[in-house]
Parts: sequence; C-alpha cells; structure tokens
Amino acid sequence: MSSQSIIEWGTLSTQAQADALSRPAMKDSVLLRDTVTKIVSQVRENQDSAVLAYTKEFDGAELSSLRLDPDLIENAESEISDAVKSAIDTAYANIKCFHEAQRPQDIRIETAPGVICEQKHAALEKVGLYIPGGSAPLPSTVLMLGVSAQVAGCELPILCTPPSPQGVIAAEIRYAAKKCGIQHIYLCGGAQAIAGMAFGTETIPKVDKIFGPGNSFVTEAKQQVSQALGGAAIDMPAGPSEVLVIADANANAAYVAADLLSQAEHGADSQAVLVCDNQALIEQVQQQVLLQLAQLSRRDIAGQAVEHSRYILTADIEQSVEVSNAYAPEHLIVQTDNARELLAPLKHAGSIFVGAYSPESAGDYASGTNHVLPTYGYARNYSSLGLLDFMRRYTVQELSYDGLNNIGQAIMDLADAEGLDAHRNAVKVRLSNINEQSRSGENP
Amino acid sequence: MSSQSIIEWGTLSTQAQADALSRPAMKDSVLLRDTVTKIVSQVRENQDSAVLAYTKEFDGAELSSLRLDPDLIENAESEISDAVKSAIDTAYANIKCFHEAQRPQDIRIETAPGVICEQKHAALEKVGLYIPGGSAPLPSTVLMLGVSAQVAGCELPILCTPPSPQGVIAAEIRYAAKKCGIQHIYLCGGAQAIAGMAFGTETIPKVDKIFGPGNSFVTEAKQQVSQALGGAAIDMPAGPSEVLVIADANANAAYVAADLLSQAEHGADSQAVLVCDNQALIEQVQQQVLLQLAQLSRRDIAGQAVEHSRYILTADIEQSVEVSNAYAPEHLIVQTDNARELLAPLKHAGSIFVGAYSPESAGDYASGTNHVLPTYGYARNYSSLGLLDFMRRYTVQELSYDGLNNIGQAIMDLADAEGLDAHRNAVKVRLSNINEQSRSGENP
Repeated sequence: MSSQSIIEWGTLSTQAQADALSRPAMKDSVLLRDTVTKIVSQVRENQDSAVLAYTKEFDGAELSSLRLDPDLIENAESEISDAVKSAIDTAYANIKCFHEAQRPQDIRIETAPGVICEQKHAALEKVGLYIPGGSAPLPSTVLMLGVSAQVAGCELPILCTPPSPQGVIAAEIRYAAKKCGIQHIYLCGGAQAIAGMAFGTETIPKVDKIFGPGNSFVTEAKQQVSQALGGAAIDMPAGPSEVLVIADANANAAYVAADLLSQAEHGADSQAVLVCDNQALIEQVQQQVLLQLAQLSRRDIAGQAVEHSRYILTADIEQSVEVSNAYAPEHLIVQTDNARELLAPLKHAGSIFVGAYSPESAGDYASGTNHVLPTYGYARNYSSLGLLDFMRRYTVQELSYDGLNNIGQAIMDLADAEGLDAHRNAVKVRLSNINEQSRSGENP
Repeated sequence: MSSQSIIEWGTLSTQAQADALSRPAMKDSVLLRDTVTKIVSQVRENQDSAVLAYTKEFDGAELSSLRLDPDLIENAESEISDAVKSAIDTAYANIKCFHEAQRPQDIRIETAPGVICEQKHAALEKVGLYIPGGSAPLPSTVLMLGVSAQVAGCELPILCTPPSPQGVIAAEIRYAAKKCGIQHIYLCGGAQAIAGMAFGTETIPKVDKIFGPGNSFVTEAKQQVSQALGGAAIDMPAGPSEVLVIADANANAAYVAADLLSQAEHGADSQAVLVCDNQALIEQVQQQVLLQLAQLSRRDIAGQAVEHSRYILTADIEQSVEVSNAYAPEHLIVQTDNARELLAPLKHAGSIFVGAYSPESAGDYASGTNHVLPTYGYARNYSSLGLLDFMRRYTVQELSYDGLNNIGQAIMDLADAEGLDAHRNAVKVRLSNINEQSRSGENP
C-alpha cells in the first residue's frame, strides 16, 4: 500500500476543492427500496409471524417467541468479565452525568399583561432503540440510546437486536440494557425490526420514535416508516462515519494516525481526512498510519478506508478551519497549540475533540458525550443526539379577560387581514359578553 | 344542515373508539408524487429558468427576476393601514418575547476528573421560510417563522411566496418580513420554490432547513428534498389542521362554538372535535355552531368541515382527558372549571389553551406562542415549532492527560469487547508516551 498523495488546498479550483471534500456516493438502489417496502408491508400485515419468518430467513434463528426472557437481562452480569462490567459502569456513569446536565427548563412568561405563555417538556412515551448485530456486540450504542431514554423518563423503552442462529444475544448488550432500565428486548433485526417497532405487532409495542444505527436495510426502513402515516419518527438521517483532524506542526503524528485509523476501522466506506498546514507532519502521519495499520486485526477493512483517506495541506490554520467548515465533519479532532481558541469559528461538526488527549474513542465510549452524530454533511443542519431528542416540547397559554382584551384588537385586525372571520369572532364573542361576572378573577 | 349526532364514548368498542378519533385519509397520489419529482428534478437541472417557467405556468406571473426588490420590503409600511401595522407590531413583540425566553444555555460539565464535556448551540446559517399564497396574505406565518429565525440569529433567512399574476405580493407579508430582518424574498411558490431553496439556483441561495405550511405540492416537495442527499432538513410532517375542545357543564357554549368554527374555516378537511361530559352543553354548542356559521364569509368551507366534526359525550372529565390523549390534537382548548389542574395529565398536544379567555386565535396570531404545530397525531412524537428548531446542538470534549488516564481503561476494555483495536490503540498510544513533558499542564 502506497502513501496517499497530498492535496494542496490553495492550488485547487473551487470545483476541485468541492471534489476533494466529496463523500462516497450512497447507493440509492431500487432493489433495496423494493425489498424493504415488501418487508415493511409484510410486517404490517402479518405482524409477529412475518417478523419470525424473516428472523429465520436472515438471521438463521428459529424462535418460539420474539421477546427475550427478562431473566436473561436481570442476570446478564454473571456472564461478563469484571473488566467489561466495570468499563460499562464507568461509561454509563459519565454518559448519565452529561445527559442529566441537558435536562431542559420549562418556561413561563407573561408576554403582555394577562397573557401567560409556557413551554413545557414531556418525555416521549415509547421509544425503540435499534442495536445492529454483526461481528461484535455494541454495548456502547445501547448505553448512548438507553441512558438518554432513561434520563428523559420514557415510559417504555424497547430494544431490538438480531439474535445469533442459536437465538441468543451477547451478555454485554443485556447488561448495558439492564443498567438503562430496559426490560423489553426483542430478538429481531433489519427492516423487519424497524417495521415491527413503527407499527407494532402482537408482541412488539408500537413506538413513537426509533433511534439507532444499522445497515442499508435498517436505514431504508427507518426512512420509509418515518414517511408513512401512522409510522414513527426517527433520530436523524444516516451515512458512513467520518472524522476530520485539524493538526499543526506540533501535533503528535502517532496520535493523529491512531485517530484516523479509529475511524477507518469502522468500515471500508469510512472517511478519514487530515487537514494540516505543515507538510512534514502530514508525511509523518502517513508513515504512522502504515505502521499502525499493519498491527490492526481489522486491517483489511481499515486499509480500504485508508486508501480513500484525504491529506489536505493548507496555507495556515485559518485555512484549515475553512476546510473543516466546508466539510462539516461528524467527528472533528483539533490537535493544535491553540485548539480551544479555534472553537469559536468551528461550528459545523457533530462533536469536537479538543487537544492531544481527546481521541475520538473517548467520545465513542466513555467521556459522556453521545456517539450518535450527524454525518455525511448533515452536521450543517442536524443536531448531535441528546436528551432533547427523547422529549417533546409543547406550549401552553392562558389569558385572563384583561389579557384577551389587551391583545384582542391585534388578533381581530390580523384575522381581518387574513380573511378569517371565525378567528375574529372567537375574540369578539368573548369580549362582548357583558354578563361577565368575574372578569379576571378566575385566572392566575 | 343538520346537527351532528353525539357519540357516547363509554358505549363504544375499542375499534369504534379508534374510528371516532380517526383522521381523514391523506391522499398518497402517485400522480402528485411524480409531478413533484419532475418539478424538483427540473429545478435542480435548470435552476432559475425552471423556477421562472413554473411561476409563469402555475402563478401566471412573467417575471424578469425572482428576487423581490428590497426597496419594496423597506417601504412596505406605507402601503398598509395603521390598524394592520399596529396588529403586526403587537404580534411581533409578543412572539419575540416568548421565543427569546427559549434561548438555550450552553452546558459545560466535568463528567470525570479531567474530562470536560460541553453542549453548545449554533444558529442554522441559512433557513428558507415558505409562505403560501391563496386568497389572503398570511403575515402571521411570516412572523412565526421569521421571528424564530431572527431570535436564533440565522445569518441568512430567505422567504419564498408565490406572486400574483402581476408579479406582486401583499404589503402585509413584506412589512412582517421587514420586522423580522428578512431582506431576501423570492417570488415563487409550490414545489418549485421548495426545490429552489433545497438545492439552490443562480438566484436563490441553498438553505440548510425549510420551514412553513403549504398545499399538497409543497408538502410532497418538502418530503422529497428532506430525503434527497444534499437536500435540506424540514420542520415537521404536515397534515390538516385540527382542534379538540374539552368542555364541562359550565363552559360557555358560544365560546366553544366560536373555537370549533375558527378551526373549521381553515379548510374543508379541518377537524373540530368537542369532548364534553354534559349532553346539554353539547347540544347548546351545536346550536351555536349553526347560528355562528351562518354569519361567516367562509361558511361554505367551514360548513364542510363542520359536517365531519365530532361531538363526543364522556362519563366525566377524566374520560375526556383520556379521549384527548388518545387523539393527540394539534390545538387543545380546555374550558372547564379546573382547566389548569388538567394540564398534568394532558401531554399529547401541540399547544394547549387554558380557560375561557384563551381562544385558538390568540395563539394563531398574537399571544406569543408559535402557531406551527404538529398535527394529524404527530403531537405524540414531534415538538411544537420553537427557537430550537432554528438552531443546532453539538458537543465538545476536552480531556487532560489525567482525564484520559482516568477513563482510558474503560475505553480500552469497551473497544476490546467491540473488537475495535484502533479505538483501543488511540488511547494506548497516548498513555504509553513516556516522553510526555507536561502531562496535564496544557489543558485547562
């Protein structure tokens, strides 16, 4: 494997700059869409029996019941090592601490005399957490979604994850779920799990919103159920994971390389971008990437991602910031002397890691921030996952007679301007009621 | 027109209860979808020329430029009456007051010694506000969207609204836009306006998120661009407007009727539902509805909506609350003796109007709350529009050497459990650096 070429930002045309920051095209396959449409419609129609059939077909597990025996959640810790238990406990505590700090305040304000306006918050009642299967269990994602639901106070958090052919799921998943107070785990994955949660089956409760990552079937199913009447809301659009590192001459090349590789090992379509104003450092990082890559167990996957990683040489730090803002990365790591000072202009990112000792893996696992983040450029228009995504905001208003009297003319004149008589009349009928006994006494 | 029959809730089967609260089916027309797909694709390809062509075709306006002369915004107030100007000023002040109160606090917390996690907020840079055309101008919607964007601090709020055949738009719209600091108004509507804002044209800037109501073409176009790669986020799913009124024996029948009719005059597909534990009051309201309806200029439209309004008789207030929560109305009006006490169990609603002097039209226009609300049952899983919808949340983390040392083992053990070597290595390479000079000195 050869080193990648270095892209000199200042020499590029506007179009070439856009190309240098382009992301891999996501497949919009008609076959994928049609397959998912069929699965969703089967699950809506045949419910449990459809989910069970797909679980047999795709996961090779023949189940008698979709729901995991709650005792297997309750007793999960006996099956895991002390080290993993302690790691999950530490991560849980930090994630809980940060998400509890996000608890919103209700608002109550008198906008005009006698006109009280309030903004209140309520937890979503039923939420569905999706945890992908695959080669290794993902207890960290259980924590990211489960702690948020627990802190928000969601009444019924349920979790779907595909079982092994033996019909089991990893003890790490079950222990993390127990920490988050999750008692409902359903043994299913893919589009059938998403459809089951969005529309409900005899066994799986219908949820209000679905969270979590997944493969292309899961992603497509989430899109479809979020568009369907009577379906469910979803957390955010999905895309391949990505990191952009801003480094300067004093950055540690081994640290930078390790961060680029952390991203690369997620998948062959992962994006790793280094933006640096020092050519020597870029070259050192490239050497380190090759050295460290050779040691990784997932070097085949990471190697493919490394092949299309980007090394961008800028004129100075200001230009590095400009490149990062244009890319809007999911993860942004800043390893420069003045890392904190760069925060003000760096706004387009899902999560920002400041300084030499803040690797992406800290946020992926245990610092307390959520690792569910907008990727694929969505950091420009979507938020990082947080407590508020598990809650709803709604408003309340209460006007006294005097309050309505104060703003009644404005309401009536605007109703006139918009040609809405009945809107006007709803004020007029109240203000012209001369039999009114206690005009403002009954309102607080 | 005859009075509607009264539905006695307690006598209904579960299925009949669901039917009693069913909403009108929204058309999922292939023709509509294909038409919009074509418009979006034309606008992406031919940009201004496509938007201009559709504006000629659908709005009958032959424009030389899509952008409204900014002088027509600046000088709009000379064209409107003092009454309307004053009404817009009052509404603007109250909406601004309530939305300023929603300004979020950044969060900074040390989750473990040396591990700083932050949640920050940034305004979306570019937002597109859509204001429908039709028989009357909607300055109130300009205020609801424009004030939010202004208070959030969005750099570039733009507004699209269809022009008259003469190529003009109402002075009320322009004056409301001026109040909100909007200098960019584009004379286009429908799917072509949504596509123009989502992807940008030579004249219309590409925006990060699109807000606002519209007809079925606008709604479909918003869905399509929110799904398209490189498109734009949208505010929330759309549906016909609706109100549910909870009343008791002491409610004023004329007030209740006026509120039901306020909803009914929005459109033939509007839903108006009265839930009441007193049959005599329901009958009085029905009489009042017929009386007041006859006086309305939009009585044809309102009459169609009244035809499918629902009157539900419950056993008691508790059952009324239960019905309302099952329906999850966009607007919920509570006209009972103990209205405020009912707030605790009443959570599924977009906006709640408390007591006899809080008509829906107060919130539609001037109390300060936002009138863009989740409808069609979405009040179960989506928030009412507010300041936060014009902002993004993102996280920041900064670990000192000691901080990373504190949680490093947990990160490495979780990385092991998930089979991600490089994630582990990003910690190990930092903690094993024995040449480290000033371990925690460089981090705050």
